[in-house]
Amino acid sequence: MQISHGENAKDTANVLSRYGEAIAIRHCAFGEGNAYIREVAHHASVPVISMQCDVYHPCQILADLMTVRERFGRDTRGLKLGVAWTSAPNYVRPLSVPQSLILLMPRFGIDVTLACPPEFRLMPEIEAQAKANAEAGGARFEISDCFEDAFAGANVVVPKSWGPLMTTRDTKQGLALIEQYPTWRCDGARMALGSPDLIYMHPLPADRGREVTDEVIDGPRSVVYDEAENRLHVQKALMALTM
Amino acid sequence: MQISHGENAKDTANVLSRYGEAIAIRHCAFGEGNAYIREVAHHASVPVISMQCDVYHPCQILADLMTVRERFGRDTRGLKLGVAWTSAPNYVRPLSVPQSLILLMPRFGIDVTLACPPEFRLMPEIEAQAKANAEAGGARFEISDCFEDAFAGANVVVPKSWGPLMTTRDTKQGLALIEQYPTWRCDGARMALGSPDLIYMHPLPADRGREVTDEVIDGPRSVVYDEAENRLHVQKALMALTM
Amino acid sequence: MQISHGENAKDTANVLSRYGEAIAIRHCAFGEGNAYIREVAHHASVPVISMQCDVYHPCQILADLMTVRERFGRDTRGLKLGVAWTSAPNYVRPLSVPQSLILLMPRFGIDVTLACPPEFRLMPEIEAQAKANAEAGGARFEISDCFEDAFAGANVVVPKSWGPLMTTRDTKQGLALIEQYPTWRCDGARMALGSPDLIYMHPLPADRGREVTDEVIDGPRSVVYDEAENRLHVQKALMALTM
Repeated sequence: MQISHGENAKDTANVLSRYGEAIAIRHCAFGEGNAYIREVAHHASVPVISMQCDVYHPCQILADLMTVRERFGRDTRGLKLGVAWTSAPNYVRPLSVPQSLILLMPRFGIDVTLACPPEFRLMPEIEAQAKANAEAGGARFEISDCFEDAFAGANVVVPKSWGPLMTTRDTKQGLALIEQYPTWRCDGARMALGSPDLIYMHPLPADRGREVTDEVIDGPRSVVYDEAENRLHVQKALMALTM
Repeated sequence: MQISHGENAKDTANVLSRYGEAIAIRHCAFGEGNAYIREVAHHASVPVISMQCDVYHPCQILADLMTVRERFGRDTRGLKLGVAWTSAPNYVRPLSVPQSLILLMPRFGIDVTLACPPEFRLMPEIEAQAKANAEAGGARFEISDCFEDAFAGANVVVPKSWGPLMTTRDTKQGLALIEQYPTWRCDGARMALGSPDLIYMHPLPADRGREVTDEVIDGPRSVVYDEAENRLHVQKALMALTM
Repeated sequence: MQISHGENAKDTANVLSRYGEAIAIRHCAFGEGNAYIREVAHHASVPVISMQCDVYHPCQILADLMTVRERFGRDTRGLKLGVAWTSAPNYVRPLSVPQSLILLMPRFGIDVTLACPPEFRLMPEIEAQAKANAEAGGARFEISDCFEDAFAGANVVVPKSWGPLMTTRDTKQGLALIEQYPTWRCDGARMALGSPDLIYMHPLPADRGREVTDEVIDGPRSVVYDEAENRLHVQKALMALTM
């Protein structure tokens, strides 16, 4: 949602606070979304839930953590998670999913490897916070420019596309950069590099053929539909806890 | 609904099966809709309801049958139904309504006459199935290229536009063909050819002036609002029976 | 809502009357909206509620009256209300809010001053009806082309933009006329002209900076969020009373 003919976040926050029990906002425009949600939250008198912004995607990552726990149990310490950039065409996807993954997972003792081409690094302050979270959580956080590093020995991998927003804000240049790495695609060979219990996750929709082969996403290691279902459960829990 | 950035029918089916008690789809793109709905249904674990595709419109025809029964009683054997093509501008309407009419009505012993210009014939396999259904149901199924044949002696008539999709898939050519038959319009003179108890039906919206005169659609033989209301009842019944 | 491929207001009214307990319509196209709503109401068998048309905005003005009563008590006789045109860019806003204000408020004994540039006068029959309502309600109704007259001694002011629809129906000309009066903006100096208990109202969204300064809309005299909340209450009451 954007400001429309002169209305500002304060107006929206106050009016919607009078109308409902909570406000949920999705606003992924880079450099705008998170600031807008925070401004609405500042003025609102009811809970404000982020349904994804340019920086974070809390509901998705809660669902991801729930999915990891379903598979590996509540004690997630010592697991290895790979967050791997993938090449997907047509538009510049936000940074919010990988950023929320590297922030949250180390807090639960999960070792995280972020693998991406150099132009696709995440926001420096988020990478720094992830490193601090890892230290506090007794976990490791590593960054690599080798796709396979996200898979090697991993228990969980999330191969997912995002835009080179730290390198360029120009859409055309961004899409051109994405096309320079067509081999960053999750396939059976890469999955074979992981732990025998490796699971494949993706917040969906996945660009089949570009981000992942059908063999993997439709295969026995894929938990994408459980992961999708868990959005429902964690979001209900979030509403129950806040409203 | 179309496949979007790489998501396929399997993904949609699985995710929506996790989220709700049923999936309802409307997809009328010719050559795509029915195949897509069937593919979703193949993967879904909840009932999938067609809200209209390129081939069938089951909810509409259930409502039509309910409307016929309200007027003529539950024993519909020996009634005559005319399905008449009409000329209506602006876009190429799908075949689903006439095709579902000629398929379902003979199964309840209703004689069906399909009247359309030669370029507006329906899918050959549907016409063949209608003939088989008529034989099995003890009814007649006839095809004519004379508009009046749909009305002569009829108890029920459904004059309704559709596109010449068996002749051309080109929209411009299709619209030009539609304009070649401007006299295929339901009016009082045609209604007078029917049985004294003839009723006028249309799934709405009707293109007033082009498909039908106000005199007929607003007249005492028109049951279009009952027919519209019955969509509500049959669809509730469909959900109650399947969910 | 507009008539679509041949469907008319009668069809819409009849079908929606079969489907629901009431019909609510917003249709602000000048010269069309009110006529359309009345035609639907003529054919409908359930209550039809105007959510705003080109002539009236009953729900907004009921909320405004409720807000005035919350501040000044149920006996509103002798209060002074200013309805002031303001300059706001980008589109030609409808006349419905000021017209409904000048019609309803005098019926409750509230003196009304309408202040607008000469090109922004309201529909003559509405202005005449407002005068008649004022006489019947023991109130005054005055029209001025001086912005400050709406504020002088007022207890309530509603500074709000609308288009010069009695002068031109051409959008480009209308927008150019709006730009001729950039000083018609509600600010602290104008608010100081009012009664010590003067409140600022606006149906929102207000074009901040153009229609009103932040100082006023965010200041202690502003009741815009109460006013917005009251839309909820009066509309619930309207449904309870009619359905």
